[in-house]
Order: sequence, then structure tokens, then C-alpha cells
Amino acid sequence: MPANSKQRLVWHDVTLFDGHDTLPEPMAVIVAGDTIERVVPMHELDPNESAGCRILGQGGVMTPGLVDCHTHLVFGGSRADEFERRLEGASYEEIARRGGGILSTVRATREASEEQLFSLARPRLEALLRDGVTTVEIKSGYGLSVADELKMLRVARRLGEELPVRVVTTLLGAHALPPEYQDDSDGYIDLVCREMIPAAAAEGLADAVDVFCEKIAFSVAQCERVFEAAEAHGLPIKAHAEQLSNLGGSAMAARHGALSADHIEYLDEAGVNALREAGSVAVLLPGAFHTLRETQLPPIAALREAGVPMAIATDANPGSSPLFMPTLMLNFACTLFRLTPREALAGMTAHGAQALGLHNRQLGRIVPGAPADLCLWDIGSPAELAYAVQPGRLRQRIYGGEPTHVQEQH
Amino acid sequence: MPANSKQRLVWHDVTLFDGHDTLPEPMAVIVAGDTIERVVPMHELDPNESAGCRILGQGGVMTPGLVDCHTHLVFGGSRADEFERRLEGASYEEIARRGGGILSTVRATREASEEQLFSLARPRLEALLRDGVTTVEIKSGYGLSVADELKMLRVARRLGEELPVRVVTTLLGAHALPPEYQDDSDGYIDLVCREMIPAAAAEGLADAVDVFCEKIAFSVAQCERVFEAAEAHGLPIKAHAEQLSNLGGSAMAARHGALSADHIEYLDEAGVNALREAGSVAVLLPGAFHTLRETQLPPIAALREAGVPMAIATDANPGSSPLFMPTLMLNFACTLFRLTPREALAGMTAHGAQALGLHNRQLGRIVPGAPADLCLWDIGSPAELAYAVQPGRLRQRIYGGEPTHVQEQH
Ligand SMILES: [Zn+2]
Ligand SMILES: [Zn+2]
Repeated sequence: MPANSKQRLVWHDVTLFDGHDTLPEPMAVIVAGDTIERVVPMHELDPNESAGCRILGQGGVMTPGLVDCHTHLVFGGSRADEFERRLEGASYEEIARRGGGILSTVRATREASEEQLFSLARPRLEALLRDGVTTVEIKSGYGLSVADELKMLRVARRLGEELPVRVVTTLLGAHALPPEYQDDSDGYIDLVCREMIPAAAAEGLADAVDVFCEKIAFSVAQCERVFEAAEAHGLPIKAHAEQLSNLGGSAMAARHGALSADHIEYLDEAGVNALREAGSVAVLLPGAFHTLRETQLPPIAALREAGVPMAIATDANPGSSPLFMPTLMLNFACTLFRLTPREALAGMTAHGAQALGLHNRQLGRIVPGAPADLCLWDIGSPAELAYAVQPGRLRQRIYGGEPTHVQEQH
Repeated sequence: MPANSKQRLVWHDVTLFDGHDTLPEPMAVIVAGDTIERVVPMHELDPNESAGCRILGQGGVMTPGLVDCHTHLVFGGSRADEFERRLEGASYEEIARRGGGILSTVRATREASEEQLFSLARPRLEALLRDGVTTVEIKSGYGLSVADELKMLRVARRLGEELPVRVVTTLLGAHALPPEYQDDSDGYIDLVCREMIPAAAAEGLADAVDVFCEKIAFSVAQCERVFEAAEAHGLPIKAHAEQLSNLGGSAMAARHGALSADHIEYLDEAGVNALREAGSVAVLLPGAFHTLRETQLPPIAALREAGVPMAIATDANPGSSPLFMPTLMLNFACTLFRLTPREALAGMTAHGAQALGLHNRQLGRIVPGAPADLCLWDIGSPAELAYAVQPGRLRQRIYGGEPTHVQEQH
């Protein structure tokens, strides 16, 4: 998506959410090439300044392009059948016996070619783009062998090359125990540390390394070994932690300088403090909370009090969050987790970018020098994005200074 | 939307959900003019039969056009601000003092012209159409004076004239007590019975009459008076009942032969039996359950056991369900209420039509003689519609035999 460095674009009279706050007056935004050049109240806009600019929009609400900092978009198979069987009364045992659960996704992902995985992931990613996403993180984690994890990461990279979106990849080898290591989880962690991470690093396929730290997955000690291997290869780390119980995975990840701790429904005060001290982001995933019908709420008040930045993401995945709609997560963050609309929006813009380590480039902000990733919405105020669930309100989506979405007409 | 009675269309190899069930083999569907003519397994399709037909689709999942049998799509103002203030910690009293709640919608609706209300409702309705709706019920209930209730109903009728969708209107004068009757709820019910219902009937603006039977709204006795007035004018009736407490409104409505009882979280065994005996539909509204963070589940097992048809609707409204996305309600019905995907889909097709009294015309079914209102989805099985929330999967939407939607391309 090469940006024409000569082209200057201007939007007039927008209500601007800049990634942190809604500005009090109607604003003008000027983009030069792929970068935001000027953000100025309308009444201060010098006509000379916008001379020669192409006027791309007037009115509406402008936000940074949405940042979905936690997804599992690449996978084979479908779990709709399992969803249906469970609601029809099948027990977990029956479903496991018939090959359900995460291992069914692993099987289908291993069987799929890179081309097939790409074709399957593409419409899922397009659904995110139509809902305003300009940056997305995509994890591996359904391959669970060196070759299959690298295959997933290659598909993620290719999605970023072929579609107008910034893709950040994460190696999640330590997601689940593959069947061939059923009684040897330490042996599998050896494979992740000694082969998977070095191979992904050598090929430049992973921008970070993630783990699933939980009783049903890997222990704190095992996850720490994965982080040490990641550090040895210069890769940033993050963790799925404290989702179903409080093992202390988030605090351990924070000690290793994690970009983020994700889920964290069971995070305690010590964990909150560890995140604060490390400057890690708390990534909240209300889609999984909804789908799993959880009741334990993440410690929002303590996170807010401690000043830990909160990000919001879809966790889009075939099992616990088959929800490919970022703006729905804004609603869920408010309705289920009681975030304010401002917090939810910051969570999918500035704080989402911070969870990916991209905040130094001002990604997720609308300020001079930031990448020109923007959304223009047909709504009256930024809060409406979280308040109402209503597809079709995205009037324009700008990626790297290029308009890439024009509203469907009826 | 006049249908060309000469045109014959055919779809090949679709997985068919016919409004009640998913058929076991790939099907062909032939439409003649505005009516479904033939529904036949592919291997039984005689080539002569489809000769001269235009092939409109191949593969995918076909369902009846969705029926959203309970909405409040016409209203003025926005409650996003109130949503935000509440999450920022404002008490109910503060919000009421600053003019929030349903009466703020009443004020804005009264102030708006018919033209303004139409322009506001149109994009909301378009969001439903993009998600597969071909029949929608729209209630009044924010005017609360004869002139303003009729104004709302005229807007609803006009939406059905200008957009490719079947609109069914409902007079909901007994929705809330307007400020000018603050200490005289019986006086307001007099107005509804003696002026509002006769006027709506005289102008042919209402297809049914609804009430809100609840402690915070109107008593069972008051609602019964409204139903008697509706009956005197030959109008079918329905009720918002048992949403927040068990007053017996559903049973009373059933005794009057109600089309449906809606919400019904607090419905007891006697109420279930009353619905069964009357042949009334139980309309479940999981969007309001989500938005109000309710915990009392409707009596699904008892309804299922009694064979009471369950419909699912958006309840789209600015206060308790600002959710303009029918397929999200399929997910909510399964995840929150534990319906099976089959039950949820029947709830938004055949049973939604029954809740509107349109099942005798086979609306909401894919059978010979039914209206040719159809959706073709890019999914692998009907259950995927409830399992995943993913806008953009509607490949075609057929209303009265006319294709009215082509998938946006990227
Ligand atoms: Zn995850
Ligand atoms: Zn309602």
C-alpha cells in the first residue's frame, strides 16, 4: 500500500477522538503522504494551510484506525458443529470423544495448506477491516509443531502483504499440548524453546512470543522458560494469564518486561502492581468472557487506580471468542466490564498500539507525526461507537494515508 | 418493489434451513415472481424444470429472510450520552434530573418532524437489512400523544414503502406515562383507549396493539382495558410482560388471544401454560437482557417442554437494546439463553412470522407457496450464523423475489 508522498488530504469539522480523549471543538485534520501533519481546531485553520489539499470529508466522528491487539485469526476447520452439539446437550466428554475442542482446530490447521489457511483467514480479516481495524495482531498456536507454527505465521505475514492492514505476528507455540507430547509437557516446552523460537526468529516471522499460562495449559515455570528463550532471540513477550485462575503468570510476565498480560479476570492486587511497575498493558477480552459465560470480572477499578493502560481486543478465535467484530467489543467492554466509552475506545486505539509496542511511533493516536490510519464514522459522538451495535457506520477507513473503504450504498 | 411475475430464478446446491429445520441434502430452490415455487433435492431436479430459469446462486446456506418481530426503530435523539454518564458514575437520580431515561426519547421524538424521524430511522433499518432482515415490526411508543403516536406509525409505514422490506406496525401508546399525565395513569389509559386506538384504526396505521405491563409502567388491569379497546377495533394484541417481575400480564394477554408475550424472563409455569393454550408466541429479547445485565433467565426449558414457539428479536431501541444487528441476537439467544442454533434460527424466521400473525401465509418458511424472501449466506452450516458474529457473510438478500443486496467487494 504505497502512499503518495505528494498527496495532501484534509478533513473538516470532525469530532475528534485522538486515541486518549475527545477534543472539545470541531477539528480539521491534514494528512501528508502516510503521516498526520496537522490537527487543528476549525476556527484556527488558515485557508492557506489547506490550499491544495483534497477535501476528503466533512463532519462525523474521526478516530484512529482501530488496533485489535489480540487475535487468533488463522485456523482451519470450524467449531460451529461443536457449539451446536453442546447446546443440544452433549457433554464435554462426548465432545472430546468425538474430537472436539482446541485439538480439533489443531488437526484441521495441520491438515490445511498455507493457501487454504490464507483463504479461510481472509474473510475474517476483511470483517475486521470493514469494522475499522487498521492494525491487527495475529497469533500462531494451532500448529504446535515447528513446521505448522511457521506455516501459520507465514499466512499471517501474507495477510498483511495482500490486504490494507498492518499485521503484527506472535508465536504462540505454548498454546496447548499437542497429542504427540501428551505425557511430556516439559519435552514440548523444550521443542518450543530450542527449535520453534529459534526458527521463527531466524526467518523473521514472529514479532513477539506469547504463552498460555493456566492449569489447563502450561505452568508459570514452563512459561518462564519460553520467555527466557524469547529474550535470547531478542523477541518481546506477552502472556495469556489469570483467565481461569490466579497462578501468578501475569506477575512473572511483568518481571520479564511483558508488553501485556491478557484476559486477567483473576488478577490480584500484587499482579496489578507488577503490571504497573513493568509498564505492561492489561489486555481485556470481553468476547471470551461472554462466550464462556464467565462471572469473574477483571479488576478494572484496581487497574484504573494503578494507572495500568487497558487495551480491548476481539480475541477472535474458533473456540472461546468466534466474534469478528471489534466495535462489538467496545460495547462489551462497557456493558460487561463497566469501562467508560472513552476507556474502551482508548483500549482499541492508543492502548492497543501500546500492547503491541508500537506507541513510540504514535500509532493509535491522531497527532502530528502519527501514521495516517484513520476512521471516519457516521455517528454523533465517539460514545455512540460503544453504545450502539450497528454495522455500516464506517464512512471512510484510511490506511497509511490511503482511503480503502467506501460505504456500501443501498 | 414490484416483482416481475414472469421471471423464474433458481439456486443450486444450497444447504437449506427451511424455517424449522436444516434439510439433510443439497437443495435447489425455484422462485417464480414473488413466490417460492419448488424446493427439491439437487439429485431430483429435472433439467427441464430449471430450463429458462436464471441461475442466481450456487452453494452456501439459504435461510428464509430474517423476521425481526419486535423493534422500536423510530425515535428521536440519542441516549449515548446517558450511557456514557452512567458508566462515568452518574447515579440514576442525576441522570433523571438531567432529563435522561425514556422521557428524553419522548421529548426528542415529539420535537422531531416526520421527515426527521424518517431520516433517523432509515440507517437503523438499513443496518437490519444488511444483516438479512426482510420483515420487521416497528412500534410506536415514544410519542405518547395521539398526534405523536400517529406520526411515529406514519414514519414506520413510509419506511416500508421506501425500503425493500415488509414493515408491520404496532401501536404502543401504553409504553410509558407521559409527563402531562404524571398523576393520572388511568386518565392516560382512557386517552389510549378512547382516542389513540380509534384514530390509529381509522387511519389504518396499526397492525396490532401492544402494552408495557410492569410495575414501572402499567398494571394488568390497565393493560386489559387497552386490549378490550383493541379488540373493539379488530386489532390483534401483544404485550411486553414479565420482564422485571411476575405480574401475570402474559397470562392475561394470552386469555385475550395475544399474538405474543415478549421478554418474559419472570414468566412462571402458569404463564407458560397460558401461552400454550392460547397459541401465543414467546418472544425472547436477549439484547435487553444483555444491556440491562439481567440475571433472571426466561423459562426456556418449560417453554420448550410445553411446545410454545419461541421467537427472537432485536428489541432495537435507544435505551435497553441499542443493538441493530439481528444475527448478534442469534448468538445471544444461544450463548445467554442456551437455545440451540436451530431454535434461534426458527425464532427469527418461522416463529418470528408467527409472532406477527403472518405464518398462515407461510412467511418465514422456504416451502412452495411462501413469499420469496430469502437470504444466501457465505457460511458452511446454518449453525455458523449463531456461532460466529461476523458481519459481511450475507451474499444475497431476496425480497419478494427481487435480489436487493449484493455483497460489498474489497
Ligand atoms: Zn487468546
Ligand atoms: Zn420492546
